[in-house]
Amino acid sequence: MHINMAITATEADIQQVMNKVKEVGLKPHITRGIGRSIITAVGGSCKDLETLKHAPGVEDVVAVSHPFKLVSRHAKSERTRVFVGDVCFGGDEAVVIAGPCSVESYEQLLTTARAVKAAGASMLRGGAYKPRTSPYDFQGLGVEALRLLHQVREETGLPVITEVMCTDDIEMICEYADMLQIGARNMQNFSLLRQLGQIDKPVLLKRGPSSTVKEWLLAAEYLLAGGNRNVVLCERGIKTFETEMRNTLDLGGMSLARSLSHLPVIADPSHGTGRRDLIKPASRAALAAGADGLIIEVHPSPEHALSDGAQSLNLEEFASVMNSLSEPIRTVTRAHAVSA
Amino acid sequence: MHINMAITATEADIQQVMNKVKEVGLKPHITRGIGRSIITAVGGSCKDLETLKHAPGVEDVVAVSHPFKLVSRHAKSERTRVFVGDVCFGGDEAVVIAGPCSVESYEQLLTTARAVKAAGASMLRGGAYKPRTSPYDFQGLGVEALRLLHQVREETGLPVITEVMCTDDIEMICEYADMLQIGARNMQNFSLLRQLGQIDKPVLLKRGPSSTVKEWLLAAEYLLAGGNRNVVLCERGIKTFETEMRNTLDLGGMSLARSLSHLPVIADPSHGTGRRDLIKPASRAALAAGADGLIIEVHPSPEHALSDGAQSLNLEEFASVMNSLSEPIRTVTRAHAVSA
Amino acid sequence: MHINMAITATEADIQQVMNKVKEVGLKPHITRGIGRSIITAVGGSCKDLETLKHAPGVEDVVAVSHPFKLVSRHAKSERTRVFVGDVCFGGDEAVVIAGPCSVESYEQLLTTARAVKAAGASMLRGGAYKPRTSPYDFQGLGVEALRLLHQVREETGLPVITEVMCTDDIEMICEYADMLQIGARNMQNFSLLRQLGQIDKPVLLKRGPSSTVKEWLLAAEYLLAGGNRNVVLCERGIKTFETEMRNTLDLGGMSLARSLSHLPVIADPSHGTGRRDLIKPASRAALAAGADGLIIEVHPSPEHALSDGAQSLNLEEFASVMNSLSEPIRTVTRAHAVSA
Amino acid sequence: MHINMAITATEADIQQVMNKVKEVGLKPHITRGIGRSIITAVGGSCKDLETLKHAPGVEDVVAVSHPFKLVSRHAKSERTRVFVGDVCFGGDEAVVIAGPCSVESYEQLLTTARAVKAAGASMLRGGAYKPRTSPYDFQGLGVEALRLLHQVREETGLPVITEVMCTDDIEMICEYADMLQIGARNMQNFSLLRQLGQIDKPVLLKRGPSSTVKEWLLAAEYLLAGGNRNVVLCERGIKTFETEMRNTLDLGGMSLARSLSHLPVIADPSHGTGRRDLIKPASRAALAAGADGLIIEVHPSPEHALSDGAQSLNLEEFASVMNSLSEPIRTVTRAHAVSA
Repeated sequence: MHINMAITATEADIQQVMNKVKEVGLKPHITRGIGRSIITAVGGSCKDLETLKHAPGVEDVVAVSHPFKLVSRHAKSERTRVFVGDVCFGGDEAVVIAGPCSVESYEQLLTTARAVKAAGASMLRGGAYKPRTSPYDFQGLGVEALRLLHQVREETGLPVITEVMCTDDIEMICEYADMLQIGARNMQNFSLLRQLGQIDKPVLLKRGPSSTVKEWLLAAEYLLAGGNRNVVLCERGIKTFETEMRNTLDLGGMSLARSLSHLPVIADPSHGTGRRDLIKPASRAALAAGADGLIIEVHPSPEHALSDGAQSLNLEEFASVMNSLSEPIRTVTRAHAVSA
Repeated sequence: MHINMAITATEADIQQVMNKVKEVGLKPHITRGIGRSIITAVGGSCKDLETLKHAPGVEDVVAVSHPFKLVSRHAKSERTRVFVGDVCFGGDEAVVIAGPCSVESYEQLLTTARAVKAAGASMLRGGAYKPRTSPYDFQGLGVEALRLLHQVREETGLPVITEVMCTDDIEMICEYADMLQIGARNMQNFSLLRQLGQIDKPVLLKRGPSSTVKEWLLAAEYLLAGGNRNVVLCERGIKTFETEMRNTLDLGGMSLARSLSHLPVIADPSHGTGRRDLIKPASRAALAAGADGLIIEVHPSPEHALSDGAQSLNLEEFASVMNSLSEPIRTVTRAHAVSA
Repeated sequence: MHINMAITATEADIQQVMNKVKEVGLKPHITRGIGRSIITAVGGSCKDLETLKHAPGVEDVVAVSHPFKLVSRHAKSERTRVFVGDVCFGGDEAVVIAGPCSVESYEQLLTTARAVKAAGASMLRGGAYKPRTSPYDFQGLGVEALRLLHQVREETGLPVITEVMCTDDIEMICEYADMLQIGARNMQNFSLLRQLGQIDKPVLLKRGPSSTVKEWLLAAEYLLAGGNRNVVLCERGIKTFETEMRNTLDLGGMSLARSLSHLPVIADPSHGTGRRDLIKPASRAALAAGADGLIIEVHPSPEHALSDGAQSLNLEEFASVMNSLSEPIRTVTRAHAVSA
Repeated sequence: MHINMAITATEADIQQVMNKVKEVGLKPHITRGIGRSIITAVGGSCKDLETLKHAPGVEDVVAVSHPFKLVSRHAKSERTRVFVGDVCFGGDEAVVIAGPCSVESYEQLLTTARAVKAAGASMLRGGAYKPRTSPYDFQGLGVEALRLLHQVREETGLPVITEVMCTDDIEMICEYADMLQIGARNMQNFSLLRQLGQIDKPVLLKRGPSSTVKEWLLAAEYLLAGGNRNVVLCERGIKTFETEMRNTLDLGGMSLARSLSHLPVIADPSHGTGRRDLIKPASRAALAAGADGLIIEVHPSPEHALSDGAQSLNLEEFASVMNSLSEPIRTVTRAHAVSA
């Protein structure tokens, strides 16, 4: 931690800051410049120095160390592998989760599950409890949806993931689902994070639409600090001024999260773009950038979907996206490389 | 709802859309332009037409009516008054809520409460359960804080407000607090909203840091739809690219919310700027724009605060802000008005 | 400048950084912590140290001093007064500039000028060269508009301001206008800034829609560094995710600019909200927060305006806004202050 | 264009709107709902109807057609190919432009040019005139840099691209450079756009940091409307709340631009992330999403670069990025596809 003193700081201001640093058990060091002094303190917990920011004569206080201890790559050099049944996130190969936004019926779910499995998906998604901006929108089938997920899981062998919105539902959902999802709007629902830190099911943590990468990693830190090491991160787009897409898929942020943390990171091109026509390029881009997987919304008949129809692929479109994932990156002209 | 057909739409595309509109019980009307047609449907619930957005030949679907029924001024022409004891939000005068970010001790709370009351505040705020970005930051004193709030309320007569983060805590907090706050990060915690829609205590609903005004009003709609009409909205700053301030206080959005809804709307200059030096101008601006009140963080010794020290006013600074609220708006030169 | 070394930094890494600091003529100081070291350097121009950010073993480099020398309050303690004729920006009273978005005709301009003067405005605005997002939108009357501005200035005595979009037009505009405006989209048109730094007319510098306060002040620094000290800043709203308003008026940023700089700062509620119904509260808020003035779009018949009709006030509405500026801030309930 | 009338609109309001629509030469059609009416008008130029937005009884006016005529894929179904010498943007293969942020010396430029050519780049970039946030930062070598670019072009055969900041410089730059770049800050410098619409050199148009995709395409429309059809678009990151990266590279926006327009679109991972460590994944992602090329900052010794050192690759790093571009996308587990 550095405390930058203002040009106008008096000697008394400086002494007061030095004393405060000592009070909290750190050893201050002062560098006196021409007119401006800087006080440095290394080691220990410096959190309470934050309050120095507005002390007399102080211009700025700058923290040095990162506050995430367990999610950081400094804490664990090898990448974490999270297993959901025999599906492995963070291994050599990427994982594709697919399925409808909302579970609507047995038939809808089974048809989708069979098709996405045939196309290469390894896990089934389906919303039972839906976070909806308006109270008048479809809110999900609840427990009935959980039962349908379980049933289709038995028939297809695909592990299932569904969103948990409320601490009250955790126990129930754990009975039926193989993996629990924390939705973007709940990324900083700290009560939920704390309780999900104590379950023995893997958790998919979506990035909040206005969360920095650091805030996202700190939300994951809640889960790990609670004891749950089976955490997969999911970039799903952030809110920007752009209105043509539902969100702006931040693949740079995804790469950064993979670089700062040992946890697997996947991408959600469906929410990340909100447009059916952009899901193929976004999926390819995510995997080319190193994503550990994808989660994609698929519906047998998107135009009849009860939610997110505009961004859901139909079964053929999903198969087409899956096929595109094995095509190479666009070739670069290298005509000039031969001469010179 | 308007369905704009593409130039390339075929007659079959048009008929399919017309049929779909009829299926849901609406009466479609078609306007045929040179090359381009528009289908219009008025009345009924048009939600399922949303799914037409990506049907063949459709370029765009535009909704007409607003989805907020209860919070809208169309639903209730006179402004709502929310009473907390004999404090009235939405009446002729504005209300100031003040107090520490976190309840830290009996002495801290009582000292603050007495000072803010003397300076003109009508309600006491104090965090018992704190939403913190990092799991290693101070998380609040919990029930102990609730008891201290209650005790200081008895001694000073100031009604108290505190944040509820989790449905598990609602019952407990209702025992001690006069008003419950939904924090910015929980604005779209729909489980919490639904349950707070059913209590008989007034609720302060903070705007999420990346929520549009419409999303904010829809969150309030959850509360009203649940039966709780005693809702006060609070603008507390949104996330932007600017890094010098913690948030960008959106007073235009505050005015807009007051214009679209009959609910009282207050401003939080402490979170809205994150800087002690900007709280005075921001408070004055909010009231000049018509805010129904302010909520301000005050601490007897901000440099020792366990949270939000950088944006907390000390007791003298708070009194100074309160005094500034009765000063007039800056005078405008009108020298030229006399001549010409 | 602080160079924070990583935990993994070797002694060789540290020595290399120390040497680099010396090379540029600064005196490095090292603080060795348990595992982590920090190198500090005070004084001189540290710009080239920026490149150390990604040197081996370096975790971060943090600058200390601000790069704005002339616009800063440290450079000049008293507030600057900018005179346009006998209109004074930065004095005791605020200044209101009003007029149409675009100059459309003699009659339109004269009618507007007389009305805004009668209502209390001190200066006339009117666009001659219009920056338009689409090449097919009305681009302004050009020189003809300049002549009309000049003519109406002669008849009403109101000094006039108009936007300059291009270095080619500077000379011509200087002949006709009393003050030149740099539009938001040109805030970082550095060629324009450099040339306007050399004229002897006052300049109004609008904040770019995605500029931080620091970037804005640095744009002003270009003008002052070029020799033009008569600069007025104008906050006109920033781009955010909110879609209900054209921009988000950042009054916190306006206050911050007034606090960091000695230059006068005004607000533009017309562009800052983009909605006629929000201009009154936004104008009041800006002045209550200390704005040195306002610039407001007014048109005799906004529904026929060639540009920005949606945010232009008609003549009566403008008079009503002006009247509202002398009304007090909303009163705060202080019932409780007596007891306790 | 749709004019949605408010529930409260009177018959007189409706007639007035109908008349106004007729005045501008369009044929209005009215759909009367229960309480609410909608007026539709198809064909013609509807721009002036915009002003109806705030007419009595009008709730909203919604435009139907897109304002970009020449850049749209509707205007030209095959993709445009832009040739710079024998380098082709928009053809089967992608193009890589590489080189230093600023031209600093003959040796620096030649070393870089030879290395990037050997690694597979087809064009050389180098800044002669630099847009810098602060007037005290290095502003480029100007004409001297142009001469160096020309000289190195002769020696290596690589066509060169450099930024034009000002209309005054166009003629001079056209003498030396093969392609002119419009920088992000100048995307809406309409004077510059208009003049570059009239030259016969190809232009690279960077997206402004806070521009929507539509605003970007409209800026390109200025160039095409002026007569210059040789336009390449470049996504270079947008401004968001995230602070860990200089910008947020919006590959979804890039894909959208390629989908809406026939013009080639490339990506700038250097500015798009601002971090050397993210350039490889971002480059791979861009090409996997269909980018027509990349522009990458390379410097023989980034730690000594006069600008943008933190995001510049050294020669080995660039070669490594180029090699990575021929590696396949991450493989997806398809274990389950066999069974079921």
